[in-house]
Amino acid sequence: MIIQTTCTPASLFSGERFAVTYRIYGTEKEARAKAESICIEQTVEFPAECVGQGTIRDHVFGRIESFERRDVESFRAVIIYAVEIAAGELTQLLNVIFGNTSIKPGIRVERLDLSPSILSQYKGPRFGRAGLRELLRIPKRPLLCTAIKPMGLSCDELADMAYRFALGGMDMIKDDHGLTDQSCSPFAERIARCSEAVRKANRETGGRTVFVANVTAPAAKIAERARIAKGAGAGGIMIAPGLTGFDIMRELAEDDSLALPILTHPALQGSFVTGPGGIAHGVIFGQLARLAGADATIFPNFGGRFSFSREECREIVAGTAEPMGHLRTIFPAPGGGMSLSRVPEMMETYGKDLIFLIGGGLFQHGPDLVENCRHFRKMAENME
Amino acid sequence: MIIQTTCTPASLFSGERFAVTYRIYGTEKEARAKAESICIEQTVEFPAECVGQGTIRDHVFGRIESFERRDVESFRAVIIYAVEIAAGELTQLLNVIFGNTSIKPGIRVERLDLSPSILSQYKGPRFGRAGLRELLRIPKRPLLCTAIKPMGLSCDELADMAYRFALGGMDMIKDDHGLTDQSCSPFAERIARCSEAVRKANRETGGRTVFVANVTAPAAKIAERARIAKGAGAGGIMIAPGLTGFDIMRELAEDDSLALPILTHPALQGSFVTGPGGIAHGVIFGQLARLAGADATIFPNFGGRFSFSREECREIVAGTAEPMGHLRTIFPAPGGGMSLSRVPEMMETYGKDLIFLIGGGLFQHGPDLVENCRHFRKMAENME
Repeated sequence: MIIQTTCTPASLFSGERFAVTYRIYGTEKEARAKAESICIEQTVEFPAECVGQGTIRDHVFGRIESFERRDVESFRAVIIYAVEIAAGELTQLLNVIFGNTSIKPGIRVERLDLSPSILSQYKGPRFGRAGLRELLRIPKRPLLCTAIKPMGLSCDELADMAYRFALGGMDMIKDDHGLTDQSCSPFAERIARCSEAVRKANRETGGRTVFVANVTAPAAKIAERARIAKGAGAGGIMIAPGLTGFDIMRELAEDDSLALPILTHPALQGSFVTGPGGIAHGVIFGQLARLAGADATIFPNFGGRFSFSREECREIVAGTAEPMGHLRTIFPAPGGGMSLSRVPEMMETYGKDLIFLIGGGLFQHGPDLVENCRHFRKMAENME
Repeated sequence: MIIQTTCTPASLFSGERFAVTYRIYGTEKEARAKAESICIEQTVEFPAECVGQGTIRDHVFGRIESFERRDVESFRAVIIYAVEIAAGELTQLLNVIFGNTSIKPGIRVERLDLSPSILSQYKGPRFGRAGLRELLRIPKRPLLCTAIKPMGLSCDELADMAYRFALGGMDMIKDDHGLTDQSCSPFAERIARCSEAVRKANRETGGRTVFVANVTAPAAKIAERARIAKGAGAGGIMIAPGLTGFDIMRELAEDDSLALPILTHPALQGSFVTGPGGIAHGVIFGQLARLAGADATIFPNFGGRFSFSREECREIVAGTAEPMGHLRTIFPAPGGGMSLSRVPEMMETYGKDLIFLIGGGLFQHGPDLVENCRHFRKMAENME
């Protein structure tokens, strides 16, 4: 049975296409067959032989733009898709990029080349690197970020910690990503107390430290927590799109009544990058984070307690800064088991345009938390 | 520096814990170290040696309940967490289960044993297997589901297809998961036309076929599309939590004003199951889908164009039906490149409590779509 449309005019399709680069494992024959199957799987999801000539075949099918050997075990296929099938929706864009194909082993999304009309549908990061530097009045040096923790401390205790971090000169003090609305430190009280503590320290130091509230929450509560954070004087928000979905981050970023910098956290996104399939580090933590409006992307630094390589971290940095139309460049924020001794090596890899995210390491450096922060700050200032 | 709380009373913690079973690869020494690190990573995310005696160590830290060899290459660790740290939030529950640990290779979530107070926070599936059978008046035989596609057809053409599917006796006719709000078949018009076409067929056949609308969409539009679907007379909704996040599905399931059966689609969730790490099939497509309120879980059948094994599909079926407190059992809905010839083999694996999801295969069987559906329906009826 042959299916074709006699009603959908070809004029609904502009001819503009965006490109997804896939790394496909296997022999050349296997990889080529997989590339051909992606063109169908990600679009019509229908037996190709049952689709007649015409608009669907010409415009809805994905098309292999190039196919070449990548290395001894894999091939690189660039597949292009009509912009119209993404429907102007981030969820559907993700679905076209990798929805069903995520279920097929040995295929990895390596790179996105989004076309002008797709990019025009996204405002992207509100601040980005330049905007965040301006907001914090830090023209050149790396930014310093730390987290209040461990979970189990009361709001009083966390606020005291935030105060000391701010006194020591940290630029951004964020909730640990596991702090949501637990009864030991309920969201609204915690954010109010910590924001106030940071303001108090700022009055004493003349600094501009901001408190960043974790708004990762059930779907119906995310925007509400962001508003509470804004009302309490928080200077930024953090969200983990692996837990909430990417699109709500885009919505927060585009909300003019909120207008707060956004940090994206990688919780639950690890499964995308740890296998040979999945989505490359530079795409999920770089390009997609940026498309969805993050101003800074948190990821595990190489050589910490996670397993990312220096090369993978460099790929993320590339994703935060490569040309993506009008989308602002964003800060890489490597962290995860970092100690102050790693700072020089990190500078070498990342340059000055980064946010140093150090949590537990600040407690291990010496007996006085404020002094440890000051030491950390001095290291960063020496890099200007 | 030692951190401990002097403000958080131990009485905030009930002592109740829920259990997550992890498969950990490596030598015994490596695996045990990884198990110990999970207890910290998923909770305090803070150097354990910096946490003093008391409430945080006693109640917030995860605890290894058991650790044993699983097979030649891996170990099985059951880690238990205080229910309070999940904060009554599905997002935070997922974060405790696998948030940061997803970023560490060689660790897989194999099973959840949620405790009574966690389970009591979730309504779970509104219909489940029994409710869906009652709604559709199909007491015993397998349910039949198909999808309107390919993308690129107009609303008229898709509605005509839905009409013929219903005439042929399909029980559920769903949007293909790539149909969202493209200009060739805008959401509201498509759902209205297809629902009406199915009602027309029902009037002619006396059947009770339902149309299932794909409400996977940007965050702010999901609930709106579900309401539009309800208003247009759709008999169910489908959502892909890999694209939207899990919690919005829970919200839709718990919405009494909606009260429609929910199908969950696996788009973008493949990366969780294809590697050695990630989340086991039975957890993500079984236990979690159910916790989040799906009445049926769509997944790729073994031997189709995806790579799931028969064993992995059986694990999903186990997850749909094993004891989880008051949570209803849900339908497995295997699909993906199925042909009618596979039906007997599928029955052998799944039994009668399943939804056969056949899409393109219905077009390949013979020249008349209605007749192909009738043939399929007869096969199912013969299984009663």
